[in-house]
Amino acid sequence: MWSRCTRTRSELYKHVLLNLEYQRRCSSFASFPGEPVGPSLQTPVPGPKTKRLLADLNKIQQANSTQIFVNYDKSIGNYIVDADDNVFLDTFTQISSIPLGYNHPELLKLFENEHNLKSLINRPALGVFPGDDWPKKLSNIMSLVAPKGLHHLNTMMCGACANENAFKHAFMAYQRRTRGNDDFSTEEQTSCGFNTPPGSPHLAIMSFQHAFHGRTLGTLSTTRSKYIQKIDIPAFDWPAAPFPAYKYPLEENESYNQNEDNRCLEQVEDLMEQWSKKGIPVAGVILEPIQSEGGDNHASADFFRNLQSICKKHNAAFIMDEVQTGGGPTGRFWCHEYFDLESPPDIVTFSKKMQLGGYFFNEDMKPRQPYRTFNTWMGDPGKVIMLESILNIILRDNLLQLVRETGDYMKDHLNNLEKEFSPLIHSTRGRGTFLAVTAKTPELRDDIINRLRNKGVICGGSHPQTLRLRTSLTFTKAHADIFLDKLLQVLKEF
Amino acid sequence: MWSRCTRTRSELYKHVLLNLEYQRRCSSFASFPGEPVGPSLQTPVPGPKTKRLLADLNKIQQANSTQIFVNYDKSIGNYIVDADDNVFLDTFTQISSIPLGYNHPELLKLFENEHNLKSLINRPALGVFPGDDWPKKLSNIMSLVAPKGLHHLNTMMCGACANENAFKHAFMAYQRRTRGNDDFSTEEQTSCGFNTPPGSPHLAIMSFQHAFHGRTLGTLSTTRSKYIQKIDIPAFDWPAAPFPAYKYPLEENESYNQNEDNRCLEQVEDLMEQWSKKGIPVAGVILEPIQSEGGDNHASADFFRNLQSICKKHNAAFIMDEVQTGGGPTGRFWCHEYFDLESPPDIVTFSKKMQLGGYFFNEDMKPRQPYRTFNTWMGDPGKVIMLESILNIILRDNLLQLVRETGDYMKDHLNNLEKEFSPLIHSTRGRGTFLAVTAKTPELRDDIINRLRNKGVICGGSHPQTLRLRTSLTFTKAHADIFLDKLLQVLKEF
Repeated sequence: MWSRCTRTRSELYKHVLLNLEYQRRCSSFASFPGEPVGPSLQTPVPGPKTKRLLADLNKIQQANSTQIFVNYDKSIGNYIVDADDNVFLDTFTQISSIPLGYNHPELLKLFENEHNLKSLINRPALGVFPGDDWPKKLSNIMSLVAPKGLHHLNTMMCGACANENAFKHAFMAYQRRTRGNDDFSTEEQTSCGFNTPPGSPHLAIMSFQHAFHGRTLGTLSTTRSKYIQKIDIPAFDWPAAPFPAYKYPLEENESYNQNEDNRCLEQVEDLMEQWSKKGIPVAGVILEPIQSEGGDNHASADFFRNLQSICKKHNAAFIMDEVQTGGGPTGRFWCHEYFDLESPPDIVTFSKKMQLGGYFFNEDMKPRQPYRTFNTWMGDPGKVIMLESILNIILRDNLLQLVRETGDYMKDHLNNLEKEFSPLIHSTRGRGTFLAVTAKTPELRDDIINRLRNKGVICGGSHPQTLRLRTSLTFTKAHADIFLDKLLQVLKEF
Repeated sequence: MWSRCTRTRSELYKHVLLNLEYQRRCSSFASFPGEPVGPSLQTPVPGPKTKRLLADLNKIQQANSTQIFVNYDKSIGNYIVDADDNVFLDTFTQISSIPLGYNHPELLKLFENEHNLKSLINRPALGVFPGDDWPKKLSNIMSLVAPKGLHHLNTMMCGACANENAFKHAFMAYQRRTRGNDDFSTEEQTSCGFNTPPGSPHLAIMSFQHAFHGRTLGTLSTTRSKYIQKIDIPAFDWPAAPFPAYKYPLEENESYNQNEDNRCLEQVEDLMEQWSKKGIPVAGVILEPIQSEGGDNHASADFFRNLQSICKKHNAAFIMDEVQTGGGPTGRFWCHEYFDLESPPDIVTFSKKMQLGGYFFNEDMKPRQPYRTFNTWMGDPGKVIMLESILNIILRDNLLQLVRETGDYMKDHLNNLEKEFSPLIHSTRGRGTFLAVTAKTPELRDDIINRLRNKGVICGGSHPQTLRLRTSLTFTKAHADIFLDKLLQVLKEF
């Protein structure tokens, strides 16, 4: 292992190389069968085939966000292979949505089972004609990973749809509490057909600056991370509270960061009162345990506990968006477990590593009538089959412990690198392998990512100058060493 | 075949029974291998196992919309088998989303192919890391079924997400035309972070009364079919135009129905001007070729052509929502093909029978910058593998012709039944097998559906008193005869 910040760069470099084989041999976690020993490039990136494919795809759709075209047949474990046969170590895993790595042998076997295959092929309208194994499937997932205290679960197709429906539950519950019941007046029933009150009430969901919750029109009204996502699209008049902007290292900035918490919480209350006075009361507050697309912004457990109290005081649902943090990358299955909340969140939404969208919720949030939360598919049993298997593997293989160990290891060494290469990178932060550093400028961040890619490492960015790691849960110290080695090489180039 | 309206009920009944074997023998379309010869019930519906499963599911979620729990292993072709071993003829097919029937042998083989299996298991973020076969997959789907004149395609997860994104394309195109370019001002870039103009402009999507376009907050603001879908949920201030309410039979009510067209089109123009004066100009108009959830409401080709002209005049995108009509059930692949529009719609959205959501669009609707239409998954290659196979089977087996033949046959006989049993049912209407009749009252409609179910036929309703058929594309005259026979039995009970 690297010792903390006592070696020279060349010593570090040499050590990493020596360490690779050692890590591979002695890891307590079985390495991924068939994984290459490291990245290898055949062409500059993007290569000639990738360029041709991009030209083809651009004829069909606006495709300039494409980074590489992937050969998913050849990709394996934590390595992704592109159309030009370049082999990359993947620390971004499809925007954090590949939990076990590529082509996990157990997932490849799932649909050899005839029942599973038939569940996949015959896609039901789950709200009307669920399979006879559906209650058991859901109850199994609940028993494996339901957030403590939440006993209800709805599945959806994706994270945005999970959040859209979470908002609807919050609105319905708020109106039920306000009205005292669900006996809708004729005026309510009629006016909602014309999108006007009282049937379509003026209610708000509060979110935070730099938040990301999705890009459908409801969730987009709570997303605040980049203008390109929102510009030209109508939005609801909903408030955006400031999110704490911490200074790092945390231990050296306690008082500053506490003030940040207080400043933001005061604004939350102010905005709630402002919007209430405008006649658009806040029915729910949504936030990520770690603001992910917005730059990997963290807040203290105290911040979350106090925010929950404010929500209770104002009768607003407290919604944790665990779309990116859920499923284990922070070292606990749900990131909000780190906050020791006084009571469970009202709703916890998920997607990505979970293979499909959905949300856990409490009794208060459960609709009293059918068809209030409904759509044709309401999720997908084919994805739930994968989810069930993934959850069993995570638990059986103790992958959360691996995430914590690999994460601590990487965080230590990122801290070393930020000291060595100050001020190029700073503010190392994160939980588990859900780690980030900030580059001096947005341009430098992009440059680092590009250079890493040209050394065989796929890495993610987030707004505005963050480099973020979103590895699979099977990412070991051996993989970490390769990443750290390449990052070291890149930083030495500046 | 039944002759038109010259037989007594008992003759009709006898004839249907005799006809069953004949139909099965002489159909030019191969019947579904392994299908039962007809429905068979073991218990009243819902049976005891179904009741127990419903109690289980209600502990986890609000599940009272559930009709039956299905054994998808035993279900086959146009027959669905429930947890109590009841065998039903399915004329509703998961709200119109099973194109070829259950457990089609060719779909069951798809994931024996290793490449297909790996495409399914390794779910990519298609906007960043698509598979190297993705451009070819999309281009293949385009060449098979793209609506005439539309050369661009985006995939999404579901119909609501397809419509949400269609709206966004309409807004972006409208703003680009208004601004003259996509050079966003600093004020636009900043203000959209707070959901305020000019970055988040006040723009509207017009829809029609009784329309259904989805239940996420953007699409829900255009959905107008039932209050239970909308009540308590905030909505955008967007206009709802009246949709023609035709009298049937069409040939006896030409002048009345033409007046309906004119009345509604006048209202469309009025509302466009009203909303423009309010400062919320209409950037797009969305409608279904046949209003499906809202009661199977049809409008003439003239209505659609004139509406498209009005959209052009007012600079609003013309969006056809083919989520329920697309994929062949009307006897053409896209229902709007029946309207001989002067030019293609700007956007055509789809889902259901297509296995995943998406939309075809023209050059004007194509975003000029990346990341404006984006989300983590952007569709699902696993579903596109199924879609590609389904489209090839539809074309190879000439299933649209089967739909037209079966549909014409059923429509003739529904017309006979409505005359025989007037005024219990009336207003037989539809294209292909996308057929409907109206019951005298909502209660009678529900009663008919329940009695049909207890005779082994699953049938759909739509608002407020419509009985709708949404069969698979492999539904033959033999299946039609069973349905007609059971409906005859039910109508005789009143």
